Amino acid sequence: MNKRKILNDPVYGFITIPSELLFDLVEHPYFQRLRRIRQLGMADLVYPGALHTRFHHALGAMHLMGQALKSLQEKGHLIWEPECEAAQIAILLHDIGHGPFSHVLEKTLLSGVPHEQLSLLLMKDLNRTMNGRLDMAIQMFQGTYPRHFFHQLVSSQLDMDRMDYLNRDCFYTGVAEGTIGADRIIKMLNIHKEELVVEEKGLLSIENFLNARRLMYWQVYLHKTSLCAEAMLTQIIRRARDLSNAGISLYASPDLNFFLKNHTTLDDFKAQPELLQTFSRLDDYDIWSALKAWAQHEDLVLSTLCQALLDRQLFKIQFLDTPPGPDLLDTLHRQLAAQGIPHALLSYFLVEGQTTNSAYVTGEDQIRVKMKDGSVVDIVEASELPTIQALSKIVRKDYVSWAKTVSLRA
Amino acid sequence: MNKRKILNDPVYGFITIPSELLFDLVEHPYFQRLRRIRQLGMADLVYPGALHTRFHHALGAMHLMGQALKSLQEKGHLIWEPECEAAQIAILLHDIGHGPFSHVLEKTLLSGVPHEQLSLLLMKDLNRTMNGRLDMAIQMFQGTYPRHFFHQLVSSQLDMDRMDYLNRDCFYTGVAEGTIGADRIIKMLNIHKEELVVEEKGLLSIENFLNARRLMYWQVYLHKTSLCAEAMLTQIIRRARDLSNAGISLYASPDLNFFLKNHTTLDDFKAQPELLQTFSRLDDYDIWSALKAWAQHEDLVLSTLCQALLDRQLFKIQFLDTPPGPDLLDTLHRQLAAQGIPHALLSYFLVEGQTTNSAYVTGEDQIRVKMKDGSVVDIVEASELPTIQALSKIVRKDYVSWAKTVSLRA
Amino acid sequence: MNKRKILNDPVYGFITIPSELLFDLVEHPYFQRLRRIRQLGMADLVYPGALHTRFHHALGAMHLMGQALKSLQEKGHLIWEPECEAAQIAILLHDIGHGPFSHVLEKTLLSGVPHEQLSLLLMKDLNRTMNGRLDMAIQMFQGTYPRHFFHQLVSSQLDMDRMDYLNRDCFYTGVAEGTIGADRIIKMLNIHKEELVVEEKGLLSIENFLNARRLMYWQVYLHKTSLCAEAMLTQIIRRARDLSNAGISLYASPDLNFFLKNHTTLDDFKAQPELLQTFSRLDDYDIWSALKAWAQHEDLVLSTLCQALLDRQLFKIQFLDTPPGPDLLDTLHRQLAAQGIPHALLSYFLVEGQTTNSAYVTGEDQIRVKMKDGSVVDIVEASELPTIQALSKIVRKDYVSWAKTVSLRA
Amino acid sequence: MNKRKILNDPVYGFITIPSELLFDLVEHPYFQRLRRIRQLGMADLVYPGALHTRFHHALGAMHLMGQALKSLQEKGHLIWEPECEAAQIAILLHDIGHGPFSHVLEKTLLSGVPHEQLSLLLMKDLNRTMNGRLDMAIQMFQGTYPRHFFHQLVSSQLDMDRMDYLNRDCFYTGVAEGTIGADRIIKMLNIHKEELVVEEKGLLSIENFLNARRLMYWQVYLHKTSLCAEAMLTQIIRRARDLSNAGISLYASPDLNFFLKNHTTLDDFKAQPELLQTFSRLDDYDIWSALKAWAQHEDLVLSTLCQALLDRQLFKIQFLDTPPGPDLLDTLHRQLAAQGIPHALLSYFLVEGQTTNSAYVTGEDQIRVKMKDGSVVDIVEASELPTIQALSKIVRKDYVSWAKTVSLRA
Repeated sequence: MNKRKILNDPVYGFITIPSELLFDLVEHPYFQRLRRIRQLGMADLVYPGALHTRFHHALGAMHLMGQALKSLQEKGHLIWEPECEAAQIAILLHDIGHGPFSHVLEKTLLSGVPHEQLSLLLMKDLNRTMNGRLDMAIQMFQGTYPRHFFHQLVSSQLDMDRMDYLNRDCFYTGVAEGTIGADRIIKMLNIHKEELVVEEKGLLSIENFLNARRLMYWQVYLHKTSLCAEAMLTQIIRRARDLSNAGISLYASPDLNFFLKNHTTLDDFKAQPELLQTFSRLDDYDIWSALKAWAQHEDLVLSTLCQALLDRQLFKIQFLDTPPGPDLLDTLHRQLAAQGIPHALLSYFLVEGQTTNSAYVTGEDQIRVKMKDGSVVDIVEASELPTIQALSKIVRKDYVSWAKTVSLRA
Repeated sequence: MNKRKILNDPVYGFITIPSELLFDLVEHPYFQRLRRIRQLGMADLVYPGALHTRFHHALGAMHLMGQALKSLQEKGHLIWEPECEAAQIAILLHDIGHGPFSHVLEKTLLSGVPHEQLSLLLMKDLNRTMNGRLDMAIQMFQGTYPRHFFHQLVSSQLDMDRMDYLNRDCFYTGVAEGTIGADRIIKMLNIHKEELVVEEKGLLSIENFLNARRLMYWQVYLHKTSLCAEAMLTQIIRRARDLSNAGISLYASPDLNFFLKNHTTLDDFKAQPELLQTFSRLDDYDIWSALKAWAQHEDLVLSTLCQALLDRQLFKIQFLDTPPGPDLLDTLHRQLAAQGIPHALLSYFLVEGQTTNSAYVTGEDQIRVKMKDGSVVDIVEASELPTIQALSKIVRKDYVSWAKTVSLRA
Repeated sequence: MNKRKILNDPVYGFITIPSELLFDLVEHPYFQRLRRIRQLGMADLVYPGALHTRFHHALGAMHLMGQALKSLQEKGHLIWEPECEAAQIAILLHDIGHGPFSHVLEKTLLSGVPHEQLSLLLMKDLNRTMNGRLDMAIQMFQGTYPRHFFHQLVSSQLDMDRMDYLNRDCFYTGVAEGTIGADRIIKMLNIHKEELVVEEKGLLSIENFLNARRLMYWQVYLHKTSLCAEAMLTQIIRRARDLSNAGISLYASPDLNFFLKNHTTLDDFKAQPELLQTFSRLDDYDIWSALKAWAQHEDLVLSTLCQALLDRQLFKIQFLDTPPGPDLLDTLHRQLAAQGIPHALLSYFLVEGQTTNSAYVTGEDQIRVKMKDGSVVDIVEASELPTIQALSKIVRKDYVSWAKTVSLRA
Repeated sequence: MNKRKILNDPVYGFITIPSELLFDLVEHPYFQRLRRIRQLGMADLVYPGALHTRFHHALGAMHLMGQALKSLQEKGHLIWEPECEAAQIAILLHDIGHGPFSHVLEKTLLSGVPHEQLSLLLMKDLNRTMNGRLDMAIQMFQGTYPRHFFHQLVSSQLDMDRMDYLNRDCFYTGVAEGTIGADRIIKMLNIHKEELVVEEKGLLSIENFLNARRLMYWQVYLHKTSLCAEAMLTQIIRRARDLSNAGISLYASPDLNFFLKNHTTLDDFKAQPELLQTFSRLDDYDIWSALKAWAQHEDLVLSTLCQALLDRQLFKIQFLDTPPGPDLLDTLHRQLAAQGIPHALLSYFLVEGQTTNSAYVTGEDQIRVKMKDGSVVDIVEASELPTIQALSKIVRKDYVSWAKTVSLRA
């Protein structure tokens, strides 16, 4: 049986699945589930083309990993076939622990359960059924494989994950300015003492990459409309859980129902393997179909929020330099009260939050540049301009988001 | 309030919603629902990028309509603003009656209810609430508006619907060969006695358009894998309906449940306005979430088929020049029986079908070319080669599709 | 010294020069000369972006050859490194014998000297200075290398030459409909008994490729305006040669001057190596700078034609089903005479010609398709439609081209 | 006669020439000359696709001007048709005074004659023959038209000139990172008190635009290889002029010859209209054909430099933080002397220079942002990060460029 398979990808033309093991992993239900989890949650409310899935992203990252390793080999670095395969497995599976609307779920149903940890648990589970064939990939993922650059290609500020998602998000949103020139960056990568470095002549491309990342943050990932939609979804889940805990019956798939009713910790996941199975059946469809059913629920808070989200009648938002003060909150409270929202329910329609964004984080895992004179320095030092220094500043924005027009009468 | 809105579209760059009325229609829940209905059903099982929705397609077709009308105006044809708006409304709403997985649903739950008729009912419903402001658009959609070219731009073998969907499907699948040069075709359109014509110098582009259409049919729309997935979904719906009618409880959204339990005709839709409401809440999520739940159902036929579809363990397919003969069917029956499928259940795992495909249909609604000498002829006549004649031949392919490995033991 | 070099290519992203020998060939003045020879002659008079050179095309074809060989290796065919390099050399140099405006020159200054023969002579010359390192490449180019598919990749109806030029011409002209999906075709290539074949599942792509080729012929290569410009250039060269032979002094580079004054045959090239040197210094700049100077020449035929070409005041053209009859020619003669053109000079302002175009030639070097049942058949037979049969018909168009308004008064 | 003409442009799809007057200007020999002047001089030595001309750029800028004005009209600003046409004329002709290899020529043959002044003289000349129909366009070009934003669209830090050239240069070089999102920027433009402003929500796009501009400077416009080639061309012209002044005969077109023999000032151009004619016949072909002939000249300095440039045997270059000190120069002198370059000729093979680059210039003509609160501030102030501040720093780099291996023996 021929398991070499070629997939069309509008971003790269074609993606080849390079080995039987990788093919088997792609075929596995754990991975096929990613077909049903969108990369950008509800960003399609702003960018209608942004419907791409974590499935496609993971395949794209695997493709770029192949390109990067081939380029490094051509530069004379000895990289064995098993290492190539392991690195491609590690990047293929790096996001396998994402649930639907990860960002929201990690704040609600799965608080305290980071998706990276779930990815690891799922990888280990796969490894068991595959008789240890993922050992090396797991080491690379965890950073315990001796040749550190493999981990950096999987997870660092210059990893194939970012390379693909910036590329792909910019393609599917249509935000042309976010183009990062992944091809060129990959050709500029090199290895120095088993650490990943960029050659000096790639400096401009990296600067551009960091600028593009910042742009995508504000233009897409932290777009006001997305934040509003996420705020609404968060409140919906919170309300559903409250109702569920109060014994009120809610239409929900059995798997979603489980997480609504139970508070599940990372230790629970480790202790009870069947939880991982439950989690692995959860995807965007569980959430959306619940929303759609709940839009008809007799609880007015739940149905109002759900219907509004379905019809794209979103909250308003205001960014602030500091957390919202009592004056602003008071005004908004009064507005909402005037529309008939009882005091006890205000918190479902008025949300405070904070976004942070740092296009480049200085510190341990920095991007290193190999200068023509042989020295290796941090990108901040290598760059002639304070631009990069500036990008490494963490930007915090507080915000308040609220329902502008709302009516709880059915 | 400023209702001029600009949307990012990876295909065209930007789409502008050109009037308040169009904005209100886009905002309407009937139209927002199209965000939740994919243009290409399950084609993403073959082309992972093909996740675009009927929402985006309808907006794209509206955009192209704007371009086409502008070009015609620049050629000296008098087209009033209200006509422009009406034509854009007609194309925006032309697909509003599509349910989820239309192709499958029209064979099962909604047999005898063509989506064009539902589009018309929904448009009329909108028109009522908007005090007749869609009158002209509805006339154009139905072909009763005196200036016939408007109808042809909305619905003909050279309409803005096809122009956008070929463009868009080829973009999102990554099938580069399907590129049709919509820009150029639009600039080559003209009006002759209120009928749509193509200028002779656009002949090559039209030939290419028809060739591309044929390519997309075989490469995408009638791709073996898509046909297999559709065959499976059809059997799933059939089984679910049978179980439902037999009184067996099935997890399903209330709206899907309604259509499972009732056979609804077009006359029903006309007679009972609330049916249209029920229909207008139905989307891909109802189907997918049902599939996911049914994969755990105790009925082994239903759960086996659902789980296989979710995990992309698809039926096999074989194309034939004639309907499958008794020998072939016998062989396949024996194979399935050997895997433990009882005779009574065979029909769920072995499906016969027929596809037809004609890139160009000769007859009444042909594509007309205005030659340099002023005469207007059918494209078949205008083209120097028998190519187009050939494309107008209807190609029929019979097929048989079956489960290769299947086990009904839970 | 690192000779692995990476070049930006808007068409493919990046092109890597894969070996030192290939790098040295690219650096050679014979090859650098191709920087100064446009791929599409004067097509930029119609498509202002079509300025790409034979240099870029040859590199692109080398790139595609690398892709094709890699894909064949991945399918299990044994292809040695020296064979890969030789095939890439052969395709890199396949056009090295092109002079400026080849089409025109082969009708005038270099009649009877096909560019393929000059390519071969130049390759052999390079081979001498490189101690026989091009032996295998020359065998592949000539078709004497035992494994025939290499020659087919270099020169056949499915070679990397066409693959690149269709891709590239369509990119730089902006004729989007000409897109051929070279990536996909290359992945569908295979070898059967050392002959190049296409796998059956690539059939649609090949059909599309042939359709695109036909489109590019009429839309670009045989575009009326290009034919007019070529007709003018042909007359200019003819006039210049006549004047030169009559002893009238003409501004021209020494190399162009040589070919104006002498009739050079292929045997001359073989006998006198220094002729090859003279030829190898000839490029578009010799022609254009002569045109510019001749626009000021006192011979009114020469200067009128040159100035008109520089200012894009081009001949008119009319296509005909048969060679122009005496009536038409008479009418045009009278028109020109009325503008003051003496009878003896008419032939410079009125040109008859014939174009032929066949998108696919049946016969010996056909495109073979490997069917799923293992048989190998001609594409005409494999294709379900008469389309391809139709494309293989040679289309002939006669034309007459003439100066519409012309004044010989200085 | 129909003068509405549509041109293919790989960058924008299609460009429409919107009026008869604009069509006549495009047809004029002054403008057709721009077909023979490349936008990026010798950048194709680095980026082989960068062959686009000032002709195509000027048309592209005209196209963007049309888009910008349409967008401003749609925002409710009153802009008359004659103003639209004038603005498109002004941008179409803004570069008409460029000679071949402007950068080099303004340092040699045309020192003291800025191309902007020649553009103005040529526009005025056209205006005379067109009976004053370019009056308004010339006012816009000069900045004397009362509505200042027109001038800003033609010439400012956010003009349609930059918008097109960044777009186009990035397209043809293949430097994907330089993508600027011109579409989006244009949609974000607005007018405030007859001055051009950007709406606050376009801030990120402008930041990206300035970053892209900086990237293109270092990656393309000031690329080492380009600087080397320019240094060589400068020395070639210098040597040719010296020889010419010494009475030595040189093959050159009459027009080039004129400028070699005469030092022409701006006042000369103003006083002697025939000089403008001579200049208007000069293009890239004059330079390249001279280089090709001079490569055979008996003067070894001239022929050596020309042959090296033709064969792409370029100077080396070293960037420095300060002008090169005596030690470095001494070393290089000795190297060159060791290769047989006499002291008197050293200056032809060793060139010092300085590049400056400022992605954004603060001061009078700054980019203004209209904030949501209605205030209008400089982009430096509007941007949250010091990035833009940083970009406005002028970066100076000294360099020394020299022939690494050179032999004056013929």
